Amino acid sequence: MNAVEIIAKKRDGQALTRDEINAFVQGFVRGDIPDYQVAAWLMAVFLRGMSYEETADLTLAIVNSGSRLDLSGIAPFVADKHSTGGVGDKTTLVVAPVVAATGLPVAKMSGRALGFTGGTLDKLESIRGFRADLTTEEFLAQVRQHGIVVAGQSKDLAPADGKLYALRDVTATVDSMPLIAASIMSKKIASGANGIVLDVKVGRGAFMETEERAVELAQTMVRIGRSLGRRVTAVLSDMNQPLGLAVGNAVEVKEAIDALNGRGPKDFVEHSLAVGAQMLLLAGRVKMADEGTALLRAQIVSGAGFAKLKEMVAAQGGDTSYLSDPSRLPQARFIQPLPSPQTGFVASIDAREVGLTAALLGAGRQKKGDPVDYAVGVTLIHKVGSRIHAGQPLLTIHANSEEKLAEAQQRLLSAIRFSDARPEPPPLIHRILRDTDVA
Amino acid sequence: MNAVEIIAKKRDGQALTRDEINAFVQGFVRGDIPDYQVAAWLMAVFLRGMSYEETADLTLAIVNSGSRLDLSGIAPFVADKHSTGGVGDKTTLVVAPVVAATGLPVAKMSGRALGFTGGTLDKLESIRGFRADLTTEEFLAQVRQHGIVVAGQSKDLAPADGKLYALRDVTATVDSMPLIAASIMSKKIASGANGIVLDVKVGRGAFMETEERAVELAQTMVRIGRSLGRRVTAVLSDMNQPLGLAVGNAVEVKEAIDALNGRGPKDFVEHSLAVGAQMLLLAGRVKMADEGTALLRAQIVSGAGFAKLKEMVAAQGGDTSYLSDPSRLPQARFIQPLPSPQTGFVASIDAREVGLTAALLGAGRQKKGDPVDYAVGVTLIHKVGSRIHAGQPLLTIHANSEEKLAEAQQRLLSAIRFSDARPEPPPLIHRILRDTDVA
Repeated sequence: MNAVEIIAKKRDGQALTRDEINAFVQGFVRGDIPDYQVAAWLMAVFLRGMSYEETADLTLAIVNSGSRLDLSGIAPFVADKHSTGGVGDKTTLVVAPVVAATGLPVAKMSGRALGFTGGTLDKLESIRGFRADLTTEEFLAQVRQHGIVVAGQSKDLAPADGKLYALRDVTATVDSMPLIAASIMSKKIASGANGIVLDVKVGRGAFMETEERAVELAQTMVRIGRSLGRRVTAVLSDMNQPLGLAVGNAVEVKEAIDALNGRGPKDFVEHSLAVGAQMLLLAGRVKMADEGTALLRAQIVSGAGFAKLKEMVAAQGGDTSYLSDPSRLPQARFIQPLPSPQTGFVASIDAREVGLTAALLGAGRQKKGDPVDYAVGVTLIHKVGSRIHAGQPLLTIHANSEEKLAEAQQRLLSAIRFSDARPEPPPLIHRILRDTDVA
Repeated sequence: MNAVEIIAKKRDGQALTRDEINAFVQGFVRGDIPDYQVAAWLMAVFLRGMSYEETADLTLAIVNSGSRLDLSGIAPFVADKHSTGGVGDKTTLVVAPVVAATGLPVAKMSGRALGFTGGTLDKLESIRGFRADLTTEEFLAQVRQHGIVVAGQSKDLAPADGKLYALRDVTATVDSMPLIAASIMSKKIASGANGIVLDVKVGRGAFMETEERAVELAQTMVRIGRSLGRRVTAVLSDMNQPLGLAVGNAVEVKEAIDALNGRGPKDFVEHSLAVGAQMLLLAGRVKMADEGTALLRAQIVSGAGFAKLKEMVAAQGGDTSYLSDPSRLPQARFIQPLPSPQTGFVASIDAREVGLTAALLGAGRQKKGDPVDYAVGVTLIHKVGSRIHAGQPLLTIHANSEEKLAEAQQRLLSAIRFSDARPEPPPLIHRILRDTDVA
């Protein structure tokens, strides 16, 4: 079957076979199938959808476009986590060390900030010397030696994903459930972990704004994992307001350090322990989530989690004095509180607007490859449900330009709503979807 | 609005504005909008459709990508006809001369054979010396001097159409109602005629296989014409069996000459007069279709129609001795009758299969630019409703290779069905749609 016939079949809403999907993806990567044919196919996929089976076949085809990491010689079970992207989402900085501190190896490839979402690698790079771009050998050696690694996506793994994403980005086909699911899962499967916990964000500051869409994505990814022999659990977590208090790079690293030292914001710490507990459950290290949470909390109390973060940062060339003394992290020129315009309860904090404001200050990117300012960002003082008096500081803006500071003040004021009555506290975790729950 | 936003808007089923459509088409022609974005947009148009207004705007945008022929200095009303493509469709070779013979100027740009359909230019080029590729000046001079011209599409007119078609061809987006309608109408409007009769073919040997789809296409084109200030009539004509008896190039020219000399097959002659009568009606030359048919038939009886064809061929460099003595037209090496395998009535002759067989013999093309063999083709002896005895010749195959002759015999035998009872004669004209009929 040639490329035009494969496009026509999907255009007409028919299911493609594994061979057809694989031929199409490999043809694209080899350059035999031109961009314009793939673009038409992507739009047909966007509008016609894909079955779970097709999505799993697409995932596999993307995996097969490159090499796969083999972690089997390192440990019987290696865990990974992935967040679909949020605002203030420094979860990996706490989860990876506390889980690794229990003895379960964590091997994670992370991403960078884009649009309103932050990126773990940018945050880690606010620590002087930290190297995110490891070779495959370095990546493997570090899991073996330290049981923990957080690095950039290797170019050998799932190269079709980057090529497809670049085309989706310019053809209005990014926001497609099967394409999103196959993109995430192909990278996770190629990078070799046995168990994957997916932190699927729901709400204003997430790609999936409704719980319905988030559940659909979660189910798709959990099923793909099962078809391709991986244990997958999805944690649907709230992203209507930012996670924790800090949104930026250095400010989020500082918040993660605080959390590992027992001083983190409650929502962020509880969220991190919930995600980590699911990793322990998948690995069979604990029998119940509560048992996992307790085990991970113990790594904070004992200091083992913080020690593990230091060990990882040191292994990747970072200056650990930045961790012991977070005041060494990059600081913005202007650190200015924003007073509350009114008295009442904080009713909502639009995570997307806060994320876009942090990006505007320089913490994020409009497009791939833009530079990032590690120092800037936003640190909340109050969250939804807090009572505040007019004139009291609502949050702090970290800016490196007066102009951007003023613009950030405007945007943030309009991102926050107040109410006279105490609002319902938003849920932290909407639901957890395990592979045994999915039909 | 940038290209991605325009793609996303159509992807989401929203109507595009005239400015958006125009910006997109001109951006494509200038090379500012790359193929892959246009490909994704074409698929979105294919799957989401376009309103009549959008389709008219697309037509106008395609017209605006090049120059327009101005025929207003030549005559107060110039007529054109266009066929959506069929098998044995030599209609132009009869309609253009008989209509021009009444004094109504006919200025027509025609196409070439592709797939199962034939092309008027290939047919005319079986006359030695005939030039289809006229300059714009030659085209205009000939209408002025002779009141008749049939030439190839000028490259200055609607250049976006050729570029869009090439992309549709490789992205499975050819068969889209608004894209087909805009493609046809843009060329007709750019070439300047005041009145256009569209011969919309319906059936197995047509692009529109069902009457429903043909009506939809006809309505769309008639409305576009009205929005853009042209008088348009659509004649929905049957294309389940080939039109007339001859399918090929030289064989069809010979049949047209026969028709102009009063010896044409009844269905082909009646069809040609019906189309021509609508041109006279549009131009206000007659008040009723019957009056038009009678006037055109008189051009055959008097020999004025045949004289006009000779005049046109001479003006375009063709050797008119080929018209006076059609035995000079290219002849195939093997001219062989195919005996009927059974006794009974001819129940159906699959026009698409006959067209594909003629193409296989060399009369047509698989793809643009392929050479064409003028001599080969198929001439039917019996049509649907004819009674035949086993062993009597059913049709004649004109081939230049024994191998292809044998293959053609096989294919043609399976393209013809027989019945014991006399079948219902197929309608010649399904319906006529005038711009006054369309809401």
